[in-house]
Amino acid sequence: MNTIKNIAVLTSGGDSPGMNAGIRAVVRAGLYHNLNVFGIRHGYDGLVNGTIIPMDAKSVANIIQRGGTILKTARSEEFRTYEGRKKAYDNIKNLNIDALVVIGGDGTFTGASKFIEEFDIPIIGMPGTIDNDLAGTDFTIGYDTAINTVVDAVDKIRDTAESHDRVFVIEVMGRDSGLIALRSGISTGAEAVLIPELEVNYDAIMKRLDKTRKNKSSRIIIVAEGDKEGGEVVAEKIKESFPHYDVRLSILGHIQRGGRPSCMDRVLASRLGVAAVEGLLEGRKGEMAGLICGQVQFTPFSKAIKHINKADENLTRIVEILSL
Amino acid sequence: MNTIKNIAVLTSGGDSPGMNAGIRAVVRAGLYHNLNVFGIRHGYDGLVNGTIIPMDAKSVANIIQRGGTILKTARSEEFRTYEGRKKAYDNIKNLNIDALVVIGGDGTFTGASKFIEEFDIPIIGMPGTIDNDLAGTDFTIGYDTAINTVVDAVDKIRDTAESHDRVFVIEVMGRDSGLIALRSGISTGAEAVLIPELEVNYDAIMKRLDKTRKNKSSRIIIVAEGDKEGGEVVAEKIKESFPHYDVRLSILGHIQRGGRPSCMDRVLASRLGVAAVEGLLEGRKGEMAGLICGQVQFTPFSKAIKHINKADENLTRIVEILSL
Amino acid sequence: MNTIKNIAVLTSGGDSPGMNAGIRAVVRAGLYHNLNVFGIRHGYDGLVNGTIIPMDAKSVANIIQRGGTILKTARSEEFRTYEGRKKAYDNIKNLNIDALVVIGGDGTFTGASKFIEEFDIPIIGMPGTIDNDLAGTDFTIGYDTAINTVVDAVDKIRDTAESHDRVFVIEVMGRDSGLIALRSGISTGAEAVLIPELEVNYDAIMKRLDKTRKNKSSRIIIVAEGDKEGGEVVAEKIKESFPHYDVRLSILGHIQRGGRPSCMDRVLASRLGVAAVEGLLEGRKGEMAGLICGQVQFTPFSKAIKHINKADENLTRIVEILSL
Amino acid sequence: MNTIKNIAVLTSGGDSPGMNAGIRAVVRAGLYHNLNVFGIRHGYDGLVNGTIIPMDAKSVANIIQRGGTILKTARSEEFRTYEGRKKAYDNIKNLNIDALVVIGGDGTFTGASKFIEEFDIPIIGMPGTIDNDLAGTDFTIGYDTAINTVVDAVDKIRDTAESHDRVFVIEVMGRDSGLIALRSGISTGAEAVLIPELEVNYDAIMKRLDKTRKNKSSRIIIVAEGDKEGGEVVAEKIKESFPHYDVRLSILGHIQRGGRPSCMDRVLASRLGVAAVEGLLEGRKGEMAGLICGQVQFTPFSKAIKHINKADENLTRIVEILSL
Repeated sequence: MNTIKNIAVLTSGGDSPGMNAGIRAVVRAGLYHNLNVFGIRHGYDGLVNGTIIPMDAKSVANIIQRGGTILKTARSEEFRTYEGRKKAYDNIKNLNIDALVVIGGDGTFTGASKFIEEFDIPIIGMPGTIDNDLAGTDFTIGYDTAINTVVDAVDKIRDTAESHDRVFVIEVMGRDSGLIALRSGISTGAEAVLIPELEVNYDAIMKRLDKTRKNKSSRIIIVAEGDKEGGEVVAEKIKESFPHYDVRLSILGHIQRGGRPSCMDRVLASRLGVAAVEGLLEGRKGEMAGLICGQVQFTPFSKAIKHINKADENLTRIVEILSL
Repeated sequence: MNTIKNIAVLTSGGDSPGMNAGIRAVVRAGLYHNLNVFGIRHGYDGLVNGTIIPMDAKSVANIIQRGGTILKTARSEEFRTYEGRKKAYDNIKNLNIDALVVIGGDGTFTGASKFIEEFDIPIIGMPGTIDNDLAGTDFTIGYDTAINTVVDAVDKIRDTAESHDRVFVIEVMGRDSGLIALRSGISTGAEAVLIPELEVNYDAIMKRLDKTRKNKSSRIIIVAEGDKEGGEVVAEKIKESFPHYDVRLSILGHIQRGGRPSCMDRVLASRLGVAAVEGLLEGRKGEMAGLICGQVQFTPFSKAIKHINKADENLTRIVEILSL
Repeated sequence: MNTIKNIAVLTSGGDSPGMNAGIRAVVRAGLYHNLNVFGIRHGYDGLVNGTIIPMDAKSVANIIQRGGTILKTARSEEFRTYEGRKKAYDNIKNLNIDALVVIGGDGTFTGASKFIEEFDIPIIGMPGTIDNDLAGTDFTIGYDTAINTVVDAVDKIRDTAESHDRVFVIEVMGRDSGLIALRSGISTGAEAVLIPELEVNYDAIMKRLDKTRKNKSSRIIIVAEGDKEGGEVVAEKIKESFPHYDVRLSILGHIQRGGRPSCMDRVLASRLGVAAVEGLLEGRKGEMAGLICGQVQFTPFSKAIKHINKADENLTRIVEILSL
Repeated sequence: MNTIKNIAVLTSGGDSPGMNAGIRAVVRAGLYHNLNVFGIRHGYDGLVNGTIIPMDAKSVANIIQRGGTILKTARSEEFRTYEGRKKAYDNIKNLNIDALVVIGGDGTFTGASKFIEEFDIPIIGMPGTIDNDLAGTDFTIGYDTAINTVVDAVDKIRDTAESHDRVFVIEVMGRDSGLIALRSGISTGAEAVLIPELEVNYDAIMKRLDKTRKNKSSRIIIVAEGDKEGGEVVAEKIKESFPHYDVRLSILGHIQRGGRPSCMDRVLASRLGVAAVEGLLEGRKGEMAGLICGQVQFTPFSKAIKHINKADENLTRIVEILSL
């Protein structure tokens, strides 16, 4: 087995708050273990094109609190081809990089798996996505910040909803997963939460809206963007059922990706960054470092990307009970 | 002249952060001057329908920090008719209410003017709108909070724009006024700001986008919703001119109306609430209390609602200079 | 076994953000299960003095986002005496209250245990304290919000520390537990974290401060208030070792108890509130509802109040590795 | 007259949020007018020691939203001596720097005045201090952010004060000026505000505390640090007068200097940065650029540093009226 002396880190896919904390942890854990650490800019694109820079302790100073990723991220078409991956491999060899840490989601780990298969490079992944849709970790880096951003936005909308006695349909991120919708829905006292994992029962929703009229002057419906029909259709259906309601639609959009990471996301990214580096030093590869019940666990990429349904039935039940 | 013993306060039109601080100030200033104070719920609708409640110091305790309006607000169709206003007058007389304070925007003051004309009720207005589009006050209650909410949201979007090297077109509130767009544009280092008051020079914008490419990896264009074309068209035009740019659109929407009011809005609402009550006691009516250069000033409703163009040319020049 | 028809809820001990979300969940879960629900004001004092009010769905509307507790909290001297508890029991019997939910920390549960012992009242507890120092739950209600408040404050202090090249010693809450200090320390990139659970190695700290001089212009030391020496002494010792450093002390104080609860705290309080009510209906008593690895678990009060050391060694190691 | 081709900018004295926005504006306005722009690190110390770096548009990208100052700040002992200033002058001459923009408070402008007197260097000042204690501008850069930070902290403390029925004495910054105390006091519904500009009437305060007992369960007293007695003494006196009150003291400290600048501070810093550069180009020197009633105005340093009392009597009256 080759000893690892030089490692590199990249962020890939959609950005998520806490990626910078993750980069910082990888760089500093690397230095702590006397490795040289490189940063690859623009995700796999940078690996292909060789935009690779040396990192030291100072280059990650004062970034733990910043949203986004200082290494930037991208979706790389070239890395999906064998030629692209070959160029990437050549760049790595030229710089004597022995191993990689990749921070991202399922696309990131799928790419990494191919790269390992073909070129036998040790790679450890870290779960960086706001969607929390990876197996092998209770939470992904960025999820906690994103749901707090949603809650903050919905609290603001509740102010105006209350003042005008309005029904608001609010669309939040989550193409395949309703986890952002579900947890933010509970937190904002939403009257209903619509998620891709569950068939919508419009009758039940309409009944609940009608039933809660006496207790509440405003009503909030949270819809995950991956829901079959989407916020616009939901708003129209409510309008049809209750023509006298003042129904409004709000699509939260890209604010959900940014912002200072929450404490939990910073701690999570810090722990997993250290774990990723130490995992490489222990000879691991093709695995994602995650946190399960407070303990670091490694999960093979092939298993991590299987969207295990975390949309706890308990949570949907909580929404129903508390939306009286 | 009748002595004023009983007054009532209402909020009307779109809600704005700081309205609660304004209600609190009217109630407490009234009590301070030994008046009885009533709260009218749902704006002029409540005046017509008689949903009028007595207020004491405690009923406005711990609301200064809350968005929205505890008295709720509405746009009243009935109050636009003589019959509606007659009913409103009867309700007021029944409760021996001698004078009103109305918090809102131009629609609110237009209604108040009619009411004074027909029934000779002393009314003083307070400028409560996020748009800052009233004459007779440097700032309206809610404007400062709204621009901070926009800045906070755009800062978040900048994180993700930077990480992906994207161009973001962001639509903000302001149907007739570009003041939210302009100040938030300066504050977020926007590369261009499009407002209803100014003809858009697309050539200039495209040139600037092209020119700033070397210095900046992300670019932000702020568009006021009242802009002739709106955010969607702007985003498409940029896409046409620069097909290789990754252009995204984000419409901030209703989050701009809510949230804890800023310090400035709380102080403004507090000062104007005291001024409104004392203005009534001095025999004023048909005027809006505003703050000009740090001093309370009263402006006739007819003048306050004339959308004097506050979109300072200086501010548009600042955007241009600083977006290098 | 008596059927439970009427329940009551109280908050006790130091307040923590999310208590309102917990009260709301108990009230609504009670109503959902067709119970009558009462609120007891001022903790056990209210039980002794009979300040007990009926609650309905509306009485907890729009409170999920508010810090503090609408039922208020207190430390009751009277309830520590048998006479006090007897009065409390009589009040409960007079209102036909069959069971209680108490939200608080170890003092709260100790009182509850005595009360059960003497009067055989079914009581379920919910962990409401910012300190996260209870066994039987991964996190207590309020902890996540408190650490985010600390992180927000330290981020602000880092700005000024960086601008002036200063060393800041920051004292945070945690009389018996270093968990607030530890997690906020990792999140803010603190150079050292001093906690009651660990002997302080001043030599190591001074070495690290000296070693990190090249990489960092500012340095942050987080000290838990329960640390043997406290922030003031730590600041003086650093000053002695490095007379040329510009060392400042900041004690964060009571801001750590307030504020809008985070998403995690709202979800936690909501889940545990439902669990507490359903636990009572299942015949449980003398137990605390907690969340362990995402699942609701019940733990006897006697075990919950044993300050099991959650100050993970892993976390102290992370501080050391990342503070290069 | 020499034409100005090269300018430099520095920040000096205590840091304040918005200084980065000011630096950015100076740099970009300079470039816009085809000047070369240098940044001086560590205030006047950097001028003396020659830590002067070239700045371009990119070097100030993405800093408008950051607290602190990227150029760092310091209080320079050496610049207070003629020898120090001579060294500073030599450094400037060596780099052909023709003019300076200095961002800071009264100490900064006093130093600048001496430097102009002795070496005839054109210098324009920008008001960068959280204290708002300079004449010649309605607001200083950083003041609006600082008062919002105070309001945010006091809102949090109010949560816990309400929950426990406590009286909180809160000490805020302001060594010579009560303006932070006054505006934040109004905004948080403080029952009393103690400022250096006014003699404290303890009798009146105690009466008010007693009188407001029925309406309010918590009470907040804001004390400026420059108040003759300070928060600790005030807390003790209240305790003496009302032994049964639960009185707590909180000193907000250094969090007040940091944080993302508010929209107003960013706009103010942006406008004044442009004005400062253009003032230099028009041949001005020895003046501070300020904003009075929305218009840029220049005020001689000698006049700007005279602490004109801005502690508006109107504001103290508002506190009294609204603290019923």
